[in-house]
Amino acid sequence: MQQDILKNTKIVLVGTTHPGNIGATARAMKTMGLKQLVLVEPKIFPHADATARASGADDILAAAIIHQSFAEAISDCHFVFGTSTRNRSIPWPLHSPSQAADMASNMTEDGSTIAIVFGRESSGLANEELELCNAMIQIPTDPDFSSLNIASAVQIISYEIRKNALEYSSEPEKPSEKTPAATLEQIQQLYDHLQQCLIDIDYFDPDKPRRLMRRLKRIINRSQFDANEYNIARGIRSAAQEEAKKKEK
Amino acid sequence: MQQDILKNTKIVLVGTTHPGNIGATARAMKTMGLKQLVLVEPKIFPHADATARASGADDILAAAIIHQSFAEAISDCHFVFGTSTRNRSIPWPLHSPSQAADMASNMTEDGSTIAIVFGRESSGLANEELELCNAMIQIPTDPDFSSLNIASAVQIISYEIRKNALEYSSEPEKPSEKTPAATLEQIQQLYDHLQQCLIDIDYFDPDKPRRLMRRLKRIINRSQFDANEYNIARGIRSAAQEEAKKKEK
Repeated sequence: MQQDILKNTKIVLVGTTHPGNIGATARAMKTMGLKQLVLVEPKIFPHADATARASGADDILAAAIIHQSFAEAISDCHFVFGTSTRNRSIPWPLHSPSQAADMASNMTEDGSTIAIVFGRESSGLANEELELCNAMIQIPTDPDFSSLNIASAVQIISYEIRKNALEYSSEPEKPSEKTPAATLEQIQQLYDHLQQCLIDIDYFDPDKPRRLMRRLKRIINRSQFDANEYNIARGIRSAAQEEAKKKEK
Repeated sequence: MQQDILKNTKIVLVGTTHPGNIGATARAMKTMGLKQLVLVEPKIFPHADATARASGADDILAAAIIHQSFAEAISDCHFVFGTSTRNRSIPWPLHSPSQAADMASNMTEDGSTIAIVFGRESSGLANEELELCNAMIQIPTDPDFSSLNIASAVQIISYEIRKNALEYSSEPEKPSEKTPAATLEQIQQLYDHLQQCLIDIDYFDPDKPRRLMRRLKRIINRSQFDANEYNIARGIRSAAQEEAKKKEK
């Protein structure tokens, strides 16, 4: 069994309203061998409903880590999947649950930590949260009734992850020599650095942001920089800024 | 889409104790496009908990057919799958959820009606009920914690059925409204432009190419620019070159 994907995948619930859904999520995770639950601003937690619906997955609830900000919750992750049942008109790469499990399997095998994020019961993920995601998982619900319970969505994704882990069960482990992925914190620095650089070279006016920075963020997220590439990108932007400074002197 | 499997598959719950689970089952089915719910000796039904957890799938609950005997409930079915998370030492043919969906797909296409049966929360299916099943579906839970909620089990099986129905989709692809991808020629121009720009800002020395450009090419290829993004990238590089030229004057 490919244990990395089970060990290095975090389930992140953002702004969950009903504590029962948190408990049911813990249970769904545990039946499929996932352990790491992260809660961002849960409305009510801990709560008796959470414990009741966890139905024995108390260890997952007890070990759940609570954050007040989504960015903070995923700061140590190398790749973040958002989830959606709606066909949003967004240009994020859209993957099926099994495709996403394949991707997560490859990345976790290389030592990366993966987050799979589930939004609020009523309204899902906000745009600024979506922008922190590298890709989206779309669960193929009936377009006429896409009201999937959040723990059921976790159940489906966790099931695909477990299936994936079991498929690779007989393969011998090979040591990876790949460069580790850049962390989300590094990517955020890169993004801030890029913004400053674009201001310096008179390409971007922060008073008229339009959608430029959001578009660039999307490209950066999609590109999945490794640590070497991150250093190259920083170097290039620094060189461009040097040029801009020279001019001013 | 292969509609037969969705139309001709019944979900049968036997001896369900908690009405909330019946409601959650209706919701799980409806999100995946399944409609026929059959209840055998439900402890409490109808009930407010069922309606609450159905969360809009009221039509499935209202149309649910109640039987007092399991044999009667499946009397009009051509093939019956039992479900289990335990590795029972039974001589039934054991299938994974996706294998079972494949089988159900073939059978429903030939006009058969299929039942997929879920036992009691505490004790599953009794031996005399198992004996009425043609085959078993085993959901691959963690052997250390196989306590899958009944509606979650229905969710997983229904999801595999829907995936199967979608795979056989004969629907014509609808035209995408996404921005078209940048052409390979545009990408090559972008790459040439980037190289010149890196020379201009003194970051890249063509006499010592090392592996820099190859690495950057890899990032660009991975990023799958669309036409808008291509224009943005060209614009940024032009602005950086303008800075470099200003300096030289």
